[in-house]
Amino acid sequence: MTETSNKENYFVGVDLGGTKILAGLFDNSLECVGTVKVSTKAQRGRETVLSRIERCVRDAVDEADLNMKQVRGVGIGAPGAVDFSTGTVLFAPNLEGWKDVPLKKELEKILGLPVYVENDGNIAVLGVHVAELKSKPRNVIGIFVGTGIGGGLIINGDLFSGFNYTAGEIGHMIIDINGPKCGCGSRGCFEALASRTAIFQQIKAGVKDGEKTVLTEMLGEDLEDLRSGDLRKAIRRGDKFVGKVIDQVAEYIGIGVANLVNILAPEVVVLGGGVMEALADEMTSAILKNAKEHAMPGTLKNVEFIVSKLGDNAGITGAAVLARRESK
Amino acid sequence: MTETSNKENYFVGVDLGGTKILAGLFDNSLECVGTVKVSTKAQRGRETVLSRIERCVRDAVDEADLNMKQVRGVGIGAPGAVDFSTGTVLFAPNLEGWKDVPLKKELEKILGLPVYVENDGNIAVLGVHVAELKSKPRNVIGIFVGTGIGGGLIINGDLFSGFNYTAGEIGHMIIDINGPKCGCGSRGCFEALASRTAIFQQIKAGVKDGEKTVLTEMLGEDLEDLRSGDLRKAIRRGDKFVGKVIDQVAEYIGIGVANLVNILAPEVVVLGGGVMEALADEMTSAILKNAKEHAMPGTLKNVEFIVSKLGDNAGITGAAVLARRESK
Repeated sequence: MTETSNKENYFVGVDLGGTKILAGLFDNSLECVGTVKVSTKAQRGRETVLSRIERCVRDAVDEADLNMKQVRGVGIGAPGAVDFSTGTVLFAPNLEGWKDVPLKKELEKILGLPVYVENDGNIAVLGVHVAELKSKPRNVIGIFVGTGIGGGLIINGDLFSGFNYTAGEIGHMIIDINGPKCGCGSRGCFEALASRTAIFQQIKAGVKDGEKTVLTEMLGEDLEDLRSGDLRKAIRRGDKFVGKVIDQVAEYIGIGVANLVNILAPEVVVLGGGVMEALADEMTSAILKNAKEHAMPGTLKNVEFIVSKLGDNAGITGAAVLARRESK
Repeated sequence: MTETSNKENYFVGVDLGGTKILAGLFDNSLECVGTVKVSTKAQRGRETVLSRIERCVRDAVDEADLNMKQVRGVGIGAPGAVDFSTGTVLFAPNLEGWKDVPLKKELEKILGLPVYVENDGNIAVLGVHVAELKSKPRNVIGIFVGTGIGGGLIINGDLFSGFNYTAGEIGHMIIDINGPKCGCGSRGCFEALASRTAIFQQIKAGVKDGEKTVLTEMLGEDLEDLRSGDLRKAIRRGDKFVGKVIDQVAEYIGIGVANLVNILAPEVVVLGGGVMEALADEMTSAILKNAKEHAMPGTLKNVEFIVSKLGDNAGITGAAVLARRESK
């Protein structure tokens, strides 16, 4: 390959979230050259979000001392139902007022580059499938534990979106019918039990009820700046309360995994997202133990479990994979 | 088509269950010409089950005044993980001692006909997909409520079995982590809450606890001969206790549907099996209401729900569909 063609083989991957936009610049071998993060400001309306995506993309390119002409395409993971063929966000509960937004068309106009849009859970599992698993397994479930719990499915070697482009909404799988109320209105959804939001609520409620934890020494009684990494530190300092909460969360995740394995019979289960990244050592073996206890006999035979090394970069990596694949 | 070729265009569909074997003779247009039922007697060992399948097939053909030479192939739905390509039953929890049984090979030897084997949930959804839905929808979930709860998935137009040939084991999806114990060892599995077995247990436990129901007038205090149809009769006679149990079951099924819709985004949801057949009028609208309450916004848009008219014949119909497709 000549130097010139290499110079033009860059891709931008964007992870559009309800609270933040992350853009990463990737070279042709999917190496991440640099990232830029801005807040989404969804409450200011759609036009604002679009121009913030634009700024984030341009800044990521500029930070790496490149220019937009060296970028061949932009991939975007959006939180909601996305019709990939048209690049339209059909609806997105976490982006106020987003309904039938032609994101591809509008961004192509302001960026002057080809844009490809997919659901965020789909794009994260695509990133792991291509960048970490070298596209080998045919059937993969991605479970991404962060602010919420997102999912993505690779079925027969391809991303699977289903009829209404909503497949993989695993965060709202109900596993405890009498459990805590979820933002969606149901009770006991997977993400109402095991997301970062749910974990922090349990920790804060426990502290209010008088549970002793080193977290209050570290962060003060209100635990305002609590992060997933603080939970890891607390457990490593022998914090029994935090340990108990995380054991319970690992049980919930194990049950979620078992349900999904029973339904979908995957070859590989990918665990990812910020919570898994921060607490992989503390949770992984308990997740596996609980998954084995609750999955049907035979369903887990030779099934591989991986904790994605991409962490919070799974989304931007997958978005770059999409842009690279579609720009060919 | 000549009379001769029509005469030879028959197929036998077999539904191999843990307690009974049902065989149906089908003509080339999937019309069921007749059925024969025998008990499985799994406890007598595999050889016995094989010869009972053989007898059931031969009897179904004989009952219709046909002979085996007029049958082009035999399809079988088996309860467990089945490798369709080899026709091997890898394991079957409800058939004692069945592990890596080359069912296709052994039956072809004793029947002298081509035999095709699939998982029973898969084959039931295949039957509904082809015979009732004319193969039109690309993504279908089949939920079959009987002694247990079985499932089958059509994904991108084809049956989907997954990596370990176990996809569609929806009966062991946990929806109430603190719910009643299931035969599989977990708590609150879908089928521990909403199968016929679970319903009958709830009814019998209620009667023991002094609940008043017309069922005891109909069948005696021990309710020994209770059938799904009796529940329908009781509800139509205004039985409040049975009505309450069935309302609760419909809620569980609605939640099961919502979970599966959130995960898989199907175009059509098929409800089938003996319990649905007996209680369709009593449960369907409550199932839909609960599914809508618990599914994510947008996931149910234009999704079709059907209660299969095939009832307990979905399995044999699907088995005949398989035999017809593979004998071409």
